[in-house]
Amino acid sequence: MIHFLLIDCPDEPGLVYRVTEVLYRYGLNVLRNGEFVDRHDQHFFMRTEFDGPCEPKTLLQELRAALPPTARVRLRNDQPRRIVLLATKEHHCLSELLVRHFFGQLHAEILAVVSNHDTLRAITEKLGVPYHHLSAEGLSREAHEAALLTQIEYYQPEFVVLARYMRILSSEFVAHFPERLINIHHSFLPAFIGASPYAQAYERGVKSIGATAHFVTDQLDQGPIIAQSVIPTDHTQSARDMAQAGRDVEKLTLARALTLVFREQVAVHRNRTIVFE
Amino acid sequence: MIHFLLIDCPDEPGLVYRVTEVLYRYGLNVLRNGEFVDRHDQHFFMRTEFDGPCEPKTLLQELRAALPPTARVRLRNDQPRRIVLLATKEHHCLSELLVRHFFGQLHAEILAVVSNHDTLRAITEKLGVPYHHLSAEGLSREAHEAALLTQIEYYQPEFVVLARYMRILSSEFVAHFPERLINIHHSFLPAFIGASPYAQAYERGVKSIGATAHFVTDQLDQGPIIAQSVIPTDHTQSARDMAQAGRDVEKLTLARALTLVFREQVAVHRNRTIVFE
Amino acid sequence: MIHFLLIDCPDEPGLVYRVTEVLYRYGLNVLRNGEFVDRHDQHFFMRTEFDGPCEPKTLLQELRAALPPTARVRLRNDQPRRIVLLATKEHHCLSELLVRHFFGQLHAEILAVVSNHDTLRAITEKLGVPYHHLSAEGLSREAHEAALLTQIEYYQPEFVVLARYMRILSSEFVAHFPERLINIHHSFLPAFIGASPYAQAYERGVKSIGATAHFVTDQLDQGPIIAQSVIPTDHTQSARDMAQAGRDVEKLTLARALTLVFREQVAVHRNRTIVFE
Amino acid sequence: MIHFLLIDCPDEPGLVYRVTEVLYRYGLNVLRNGEFVDRHDQHFFMRTEFDGPCEPKTLLQELRAALPPTARVRLRNDQPRRIVLLATKEHHCLSELLVRHFFGQLHAEILAVVSNHDTLRAITEKLGVPYHHLSAEGLSREAHEAALLTQIEYYQPEFVVLARYMRILSSEFVAHFPERLINIHHSFLPAFIGASPYAQAYERGVKSIGATAHFVTDQLDQGPIIAQSVIPTDHTQSARDMAQAGRDVEKLTLARALTLVFREQVAVHRNRTIVFE
Repeated sequence: MIHFLLIDCPDEPGLVYRVTEVLYRYGLNVLRNGEFVDRHDQHFFMRTEFDGPCEPKTLLQELRAALPPTARVRLRNDQPRRIVLLATKEHHCLSELLVRHFFGQLHAEILAVVSNHDTLRAITEKLGVPYHHLSAEGLSREAHEAALLTQIEYYQPEFVVLARYMRILSSEFVAHFPERLINIHHSFLPAFIGASPYAQAYERGVKSIGATAHFVTDQLDQGPIIAQSVIPTDHTQSARDMAQAGRDVEKLTLARALTLVFREQVAVHRNRTIVFE
Repeated sequence: MIHFLLIDCPDEPGLVYRVTEVLYRYGLNVLRNGEFVDRHDQHFFMRTEFDGPCEPKTLLQELRAALPPTARVRLRNDQPRRIVLLATKEHHCLSELLVRHFFGQLHAEILAVVSNHDTLRAITEKLGVPYHHLSAEGLSREAHEAALLTQIEYYQPEFVVLARYMRILSSEFVAHFPERLINIHHSFLPAFIGASPYAQAYERGVKSIGATAHFVTDQLDQGPIIAQSVIPTDHTQSARDMAQAGRDVEKLTLARALTLVFREQVAVHRNRTIVFE
Repeated sequence: MIHFLLIDCPDEPGLVYRVTEVLYRYGLNVLRNGEFVDRHDQHFFMRTEFDGPCEPKTLLQELRAALPPTARVRLRNDQPRRIVLLATKEHHCLSELLVRHFFGQLHAEILAVVSNHDTLRAITEKLGVPYHHLSAEGLSREAHEAALLTQIEYYQPEFVVLARYMRILSSEFVAHFPERLINIHHSFLPAFIGASPYAQAYERGVKSIGATAHFVTDQLDQGPIIAQSVIPTDHTQSARDMAQAGRDVEKLTLARALTLVFREQVAVHRNRTIVFE
Repeated sequence: MIHFLLIDCPDEPGLVYRVTEVLYRYGLNVLRNGEFVDRHDQHFFMRTEFDGPCEPKTLLQELRAALPPTARVRLRNDQPRRIVLLATKEHHCLSELLVRHFFGQLHAEILAVVSNHDTLRAITEKLGVPYHHLSAEGLSREAHEAALLTQIEYYQPEFVVLARYMRILSSEFVAHFPERLINIHHSFLPAFIGASPYAQAYERGVKSIGATAHFVTDQLDQGPIIAQSVIPTDHTQSARDMAQAGRDVEKLTLARALTLVFREQVAVHRNRTIVFE
């Protein structure tokens, strides 16, 4: 079975040598290897994809013994991740993920879609995924988030993906999913933080619009960026046109970010990501 | 001789018809024609490139008679624009413009380069352009800008181009050059306003960096955007690497913006540009 | 109701003036106007989007009277186009179009999907479109194409779209759909004509891969190009990886080409397209 | 001093481990490390950038001892490469390289420019580089190439760069510079091989144009591709417009390819390149 190994620790000489020595000793076949040293922080990152008979517990022990005590070591097999999607009314990101999932191309199992509206039930259920409508009407934010949380935790997902979920989540909610909650923001962050980025982009008269997939932290639109893309726009596009044109770049940026995360290609360090491509 | 006609006015029916009727009556050969209506503001824009025997004064009179009284009508021939460049120490934008100028590919005559440092004298003079070093050392901003202004006005330029000029200009200075002062900002505005945008971009961990050419107004980095471009970056690039990688996109974005402006392809309306490509 | 007007004819002075005069006289409100003159061929193209009470027959007569006798004049309203899709086994282009159709974002009604395999029945039927499996097994090409043709003509579509249909169609078949048959080719044409373009691209070691949407003519992969896009690749990608990465660019390129064609933004002239954006 | 190590050999287990063991033993500080295995050919590639006291001869011996006997091992320090440029009449690629060289940003010393025309003498000499005009008029190809070769070999360059040199070079000439002769082709290869690619692109009505930097082999435009870039075009551009628009992408693509080659980031294997970025 294929495994993904992700390591980070303070840099020191010989780290690659020590890690590859362990893998070599265990007869594991390295398929792909990437290292990166953040010179600014003197911090070392390494991602290895290997094949072979792997007894995870033993291997982790050996790797930890070979590395500095503060090293973070993550070892995962390549089984699909278990995920829950949150959505509101816009379908494009949700549809993209549902279709990929339907054809087994998402590296993940979508356990359910949870939404504050009932708009996207049809596409979700047709493509074979349970849909939960949890209206926020008449509820306090706390009460609505409590309901969301209960529904999500029922599925015990590894990741929660905001597929154009249009309500701001509280710090308390976000705190349940450290490095496990992923959002697609419909602008080139940090250009247009907050609501209505296309309206802001139109007002400012920009010549490009973009999308940013990022981990969600307790600071709005400030979490570590996983992937960004940009397409040209011009004066002929209204804010509404920009929103339409932006849909394609949003859905592909989110899908790409998820693939990176689900295959353990993304390490997070001090609000920045190291992405092994 | 080829002429460029740029019109904007409140929209009403028949404007294209009325303008083309005048040009047709004068036997002018339309080479290229573009119209745009800003639906939001109900404002009409039209750019026409035409060839033929043109007596500008008469033609302008006829066009004005055919248009609403508030219409702005600009008629220019395709002679090179007269420009002055301001620079500091970084050469890449300046070199790009000097080389294009040397080979007659800038649609402009560079009358002089003015700089607060002496660093770029050699490249400028080798490529045949006068270089004026006006140090800011020991001078108040007012005094330095007064010296700049005197030197620039000596040349009576149509446009002043900030080719990586690294000092902030006062509102008073800027006010001398409405829609005639063009800057290249080394980020995708409005993402990183102000100083050290690459350092800011590095800190934020963005996955793309860009450049923005814009008209300068009295609000820092807030003027109408003429052109923007973006290139990918990643975690392997330090702020300094990003700055290096950004040079190419800066110089091409600036050169493209200038071509657009010099050929009257850019109308300005409420802090946004309409660009006829 | 909004109408699209597409005109082409040999160039001569005053064409824009004459066309806009007719529209002005009929009180039609021009929303968008584009003209282009191919200097090489001295040929004129114009596209106008207008709103207002339009009696098509009268208007066409007036326009034809105002234009040279060889002019081609096309007038269409903005109702959805009636289309049939052909597919084989790969889902990505088909799914993209089915999802857009499901949410009313395709500017077209998909009347049916016809395929030489049964693989894509589920996604098609779940999204509410009839699916016809016409196997080619045991049939001559003539016999299979005859069956295809019967099935397609049953629906009387305006356009037929090859959404990764993997069989080469005969000249006879193609001749039934002049400027009405659209294909997505999975390479940057004319780089890799014919079968297995990703395998060819891998062999050649290219650093970018692309997709080309084009009208189908009787010469394989040689018809007028409507849209092209390109994404970077590198040595780490096998031919199979390239094919996977190429899917996204294929589906978006096809969707964009269809939007252009369905909104009458594409004129064809001597195996090239004029695209009004 | 910083060194670049480039290794390739048939793949087998433990190669990374064995190489990093040697570097670790010699106390060398790995700054950057990249590996790649071509699964199709079972071939291993590795590039390492390291700092520290390096005695090249000893280190090479040790590395060779640790690797399979057929391994190719290349060890270079980061001193500027010695290069000669060939050009004809178009300045854009030549100017780009001369300006970068003038400011010490090319990772190379340009020893001389050799041209079959005298057109580009001024820019070359102003920027401090010797210029040799070797006219081909009245000479057989053999005689002209012999003159070229004599002039080039006088400088003993490590690389020869064709900066828009417009004559086809014979196999005999090319054979003198295996993996040392680099060309910029003004199209997205293999789309438009041979002469006048922009005219071909115009005829075909493509929607993107590109540039390809590649090593020259004895097959015209068929050598290993180092870098490619693409920009959009459309029907409004004549073949001449495309050529103008293409200049920027050509010069940046060539400059990028040279940086990659000069910093030993490019391995060649079976007419394909492995590029460590």
